[in-house]
Amino acid sequence: MTATDQQRADLLALRGALGSFATGVTIVTTRVEDADVGLTANSFSSVSLDPPMLLWSLAKTSSSHEAFMAAGHFAVHVLSVDQEHLSRRFASKDVDRFAGLPLERGPGDVPLLTGCAARFSCRSAFHYEGGDHTIFVGEIVGFDHTPTPPLVFHAGKYALAAPRAEPLGAADPARVPPTGFAEDLLGYLMGRAHHQLYDRMRSELAELGLGEREHFTLSVLGISDRRTLDEINAFTAYTGVTLTREAAADLESRGLVRCEPAEGGPRLSLTDAGQQALLRLVAAAKAIEVDALADLSEEEGRLLRHLLKRVIRTTDPGIPDLWASRQERS
Amino acid sequence: MTATDQQRADLLALRGALGSFATGVTIVTTRVEDADVGLTANSFSSVSLDPPMLLWSLAKTSSSHEAFMAAGHFAVHVLSVDQEHLSRRFASKDVDRFAGLPLERGPGDVPLLTGCAARFSCRSAFHYEGGDHTIFVGEIVGFDHTPTPPLVFHAGKYALAAPRAEPLGAADPARVPPTGFAEDLLGYLMGRAHHQLYDRMRSELAELGLGEREHFTLSVLGISDRRTLDEINAFTAYTGVTLTREAAADLESRGLVRCEPAEGGPRLSLTDAGQQALLRLVAAAKAIEVDALADLSEEEGRLLRHLLKRVIRTTDPGIPDLWASRQERS
Repeated sequence: MTATDQQRADLLALRGALGSFATGVTIVTTRVEDADVGLTANSFSSVSLDPPMLLWSLAKTSSSHEAFMAAGHFAVHVLSVDQEHLSRRFASKDVDRFAGLPLERGPGDVPLLTGCAARFSCRSAFHYEGGDHTIFVGEIVGFDHTPTPPLVFHAGKYALAAPRAEPLGAADPARVPPTGFAEDLLGYLMGRAHHQLYDRMRSELAELGLGEREHFTLSVLGISDRRTLDEINAFTAYTGVTLTREAAADLESRGLVRCEPAEGGPRLSLTDAGQQALLRLVAAAKAIEVDALADLSEEEGRLLRHLLKRVIRTTDPGIPDLWASRQERS
Repeated sequence: MTATDQQRADLLALRGALGSFATGVTIVTTRVEDADVGLTANSFSSVSLDPPMLLWSLAKTSSSHEAFMAAGHFAVHVLSVDQEHLSRRFASKDVDRFAGLPLERGPGDVPLLTGCAARFSCRSAFHYEGGDHTIFVGEIVGFDHTPTPPLVFHAGKYALAAPRAEPLGAADPARVPPTGFAEDLLGYLMGRAHHQLYDRMRSELAELGLGEREHFTLSVLGISDRRTLDEINAFTAYTGVTLTREAAADLESRGLVRCEPAEGGPRLSLTDAGQQALLRLVAAAKAIEVDALADLSEEEGRLLRHLLKRVIRTTDPGIPDLWASRQERS
């Protein structure tokens, strides 16, 4: 390693260490000589309550450094979890960062962005020396704030602040039986959550005179039709439910699917009545989902889906991709 | 509202707005006149890379203010997600904050805590005026860092930085069929995750010559025994699986449960062989869980359980608390 390589490695290590401190993400804006200036910064810190003050810092080499040194006012916007695109835009070179954005105006005619978790209008109070950066301290002269979840930056990646996973009525050792089958067992939680959701679907199915097997069959054909019995079962075998020849004949006699003779065995498709039944079941599933997620924020709901998808990917025994097969055939 | 009430309300609103910026949590330590000093702070910010500098701020009224003003060195520890107890301890009054903690020593004999996400040893560089706080700028003279997930503080609560929920192979509109049954449907994800996990359990059950119904029955009796058929079914009805009189008799004839005559119908309990079978199934469930969570961090696994529990609570149709019944009866 040359001295320069070593320095570069040290710098990378330092960046990594500093990046282990999670932060929110802000956009700082000002207006100087009739021009709006703004940039993404995560070096924000609150300083004082009386008088109310905050700080952020900016590289002396930044093209906006001069503007902020000259500015009498600036504004700090704490970004919400839905504003990652703004964070990226205000960190990009060679784009008109304010183009098309709805703007309000704060003290000093400073541009104020909308939809943020919080906004602070500041009077420039101090500029402090900070190595290759200048530390800007502002006195807060106005602010507003919404309870939107914030965007988080950690270890070079965007993230979100999730609640800590407190045990919910578990963890009491008196409640753990000798087999160790505690309420925290993932298989139990997954099974219980699934069956509680599916219990409502079963009522819906019962009204249509259908069972789980028929539900899975209609669902597969609704995504990708003209399927043989074996193909349908390849998609659903992992559920332990199998579509038999008799059950298929029953679905046909009830007018929900039609069978076309083909090489390799008859191929099943949905009839219009089958399509209608499936539409009703999907609508029911969506209503069940809305109710099931009523206690979670939108972001928590997204997070639950994300974690389930990762478990599905990890435990996938090699089930064919049903949706991809749709694309191939369409 | 009196003027004082108004001021107090304004201050609360300001605190709320400032709290919308998520931060990591640090403990800052120093050593002055042979005494270790340390406190929790989330006003940390990195400042400069060349020379490497960071800052944090401290209320002038803090009992530690004088010590840090006098200190030639200090250290900043970025706490990991498992160090919430340290954050609380170093924010508490009237406790010996360092008692019993393994300590290392940095430049200036400053105490260094262990198990942190990152640590920075600093030489005091500048003290800056910041309203009711002093801003301490340190030149970083040493640091280390581990890839441990960090503790996060947001809106007055501890949190964790969770990955953003990126779509995993979904979201392609070409993949959404006319019924709207997309891969993001919670019921689908929950069912698929459950069935993929349970598919492996089914193999285990098959080796014991058991099915889902027998599995649920052994599980219920393993937590709370001497149960009638109706009581067992009250715990498991939401799964759509019912224990019939015939199935119970079969379990008895195979030596897995025993029936005692009682008022209100015979009561079932596990035999030793039944207990052994259940132990084997719980061990299998734990192995399946380890594999299913292999791709998630420990904290993500905890988060998944937490979110599942909240969905379970929201969708609970009124299932009796099986574990509580254990406590009542024991």
